[in-house]
Amino acid sequence: MHQVAVVGVTGAVGTEILRVMDRRGFPVAGLRALASERSAGQRLTFRGEEVAIEAATEGSFQGIDLAFFSAGATRSRKLVPAASGAGAIVVDNSSAFRMDPTIPLIVPEINGGSLDAAAPIVANPNCVAAILTMAVGPLTKIGTLKRVVVSTYQSASGAGARAMDDLIVQTHDSLAGRPLVPKVLKHPYAFNLFSHDSDVEANLYNAEENKVVAETRKILDLPNLPLSVTCVRVPVLRAHSMSVNIEFEEAVTPALAMEALQSTAGIKLVDDHENNHYPMPLEASGKDDVFVGRVRRDPSCPTALNLFVCGDQLLKGAALNAVQIAEMLVGRA
Amino acid sequence: MHQVAVVGVTGAVGTEILRVMDRRGFPVAGLRALASERSAGQRLTFRGEEVAIEAATEGSFQGIDLAFFSAGATRSRKLVPAASGAGAIVVDNSSAFRMDPTIPLIVPEINGGSLDAAAPIVANPNCVAAILTMAVGPLTKIGTLKRVVVSTYQSASGAGARAMDDLIVQTHDSLAGRPLVPKVLKHPYAFNLFSHDSDVEANLYNAEENKVVAETRKILDLPNLPLSVTCVRVPVLRAHSMSVNIEFEEAVTPALAMEALQSTAGIKLVDDHENNHYPMPLEASGKDDVFVGRVRRDPSCPTALNLFVCGDQLLKGAALNAVQIAEMLVGRA
Repeated sequence: MHQVAVVGVTGAVGTEILRVMDRRGFPVAGLRALASERSAGQRLTFRGEEVAIEAATEGSFQGIDLAFFSAGATRSRKLVPAASGAGAIVVDNSSAFRMDPTIPLIVPEINGGSLDAAAPIVANPNCVAAILTMAVGPLTKIGTLKRVVVSTYQSASGAGARAMDDLIVQTHDSLAGRPLVPKVLKHPYAFNLFSHDSDVEANLYNAEENKVVAETRKILDLPNLPLSVTCVRVPVLRAHSMSVNIEFEEAVTPALAMEALQSTAGIKLVDDHENNHYPMPLEASGKDDVFVGRVRRDPSCPTALNLFVCGDQLLKGAALNAVQIAEMLVGRA
Repeated sequence: MHQVAVVGVTGAVGTEILRVMDRRGFPVAGLRALASERSAGQRLTFRGEEVAIEAATEGSFQGIDLAFFSAGATRSRKLVPAASGAGAIVVDNSSAFRMDPTIPLIVPEINGGSLDAAAPIVANPNCVAAILTMAVGPLTKIGTLKRVVVSTYQSASGAGARAMDDLIVQTHDSLAGRPLVPKVLKHPYAFNLFSHDSDVEANLYNAEENKVVAETRKILDLPNLPLSVTCVRVPVLRAHSMSVNIEFEEAVTPALAMEALQSTAGIKLVDDHENNHYPMPLEASGKDDVFVGRVRRDPSCPTALNLFVCGDQLLKGAALNAVQIAEMLVGRA
């Protein structure tokens, strides 16, 4: 049993971490609920018990043996060393340490085997990288990847609970004929879509796209994998979708790819041609599995396949993967 | 001045054809408003005059010199010969004749130069093919295309006015917590997305994807262009978006590509990195121009570029392009 801290406990991901720990029977002896000053003093319920929310500070980690961080990179950079110093194992959902070569970046089904059980800090990937590697990882066992081209259809939840609320409020306004007033993301969101809201960097890719490229390479242990990613925010609440084109060095059949996917824990094949039923974010929402389908030959390249992927951004894209990592870490000893 | 018939005049595209003819000052001497039996007897207003809607039959085209068809391929196959036989020039927005080698398939800015002014029937492309070729066509002048990979974000309007209504009704229901009851498209649409609703064909691509491939090749006059298309319906009302990856035989700079795009009539470059402002369907809705942006090098391939494209499905994707074709045809004589 563990003394567990969750930093960012009131956020969309923090809330899901509690739910996932609860339903998976994670061995929690005590919960320390940490958030910003703004939420301090509020209460939440975990497994039937009321827990007071405290402001997260350097002193918050005494007696904690496992800490989840999901409060942004700035807060992680500031507080993860304190949690580590107090002896807590850290699972960090921010981008702060993901590309640190000394820190593992883990999707358990894909590269869990590489996790050193003594790692004091483990990074949880960006949501797109986690969902994408779930679909692409199994295919590295049946062929050598030559190039991957991805276009995403990302949900509001990736920008937090407030962005989900903003999409709902804007959609009400749109239906009522009122003007749209974006409050969280910059552009009108109701019945609209736009290039991902992270900053555009020097290479003209946004920070999200650059993260997905770097993290996917690290998780797959393919540091030079040619990868092109276009990240788009669509008016969907909580599951990310992606259209993925995978070129192999040599041809791989769709049947072989589907076999590799089907035999991977955490993947559900949804590939019903007759009913035109393929992965959809509404069906993937609330599900642990990453849905993969539309596995088909690419007519423009004899060694490429196309596929379509949906995964719950808050679950496999964040909270579920974080709790799975924690399960691997506390399973040690 | 012309005696003009519009078949499918009550549909989403038919309605736009009237609006576009009106605002472009198309020389209409008389309008024959044709639709299904269901709409016969209703009236519409065109340029301030009431016009009775008649049921479209083989006998509807006496005295007509220009007929627009936008009532589906079955109706076009049945009635276009009658219209032609009655001496009308036909602009057909259905898929019925698009791949007929004797019938031109035209996007005026891209391959208008190939249009034989004496063509009795001209096909108007599929909406994705029209918008895609607007963005890709200008780039064929600065490099040789090697391979194009497209993922679409298609609006409800492509499935007609009833699908737009269905998206709105379902969104109301979703916000009110009521169950979603899809009436036009097969899957829940509010805050969801799904693989395009056309039938999945033997190659595991849906009819829409196969149309886009075939029509794009025909419009660009590149019959063997390697092209991979994934068509996805997103909860947007009336503009289609697409993420386009273009591999050239030899490297082309983004600057050169932008210059080629900027100098093409009907294209608006939206490429403001500082404000993360790129093409968005809400901004492209109601606009004649196809919006193109995010023109950038593909890090996974030294001779490829990525770009993002939005175009109003009902305008450049359908009605505007049809009226532009008609303008070219009646400009003859």
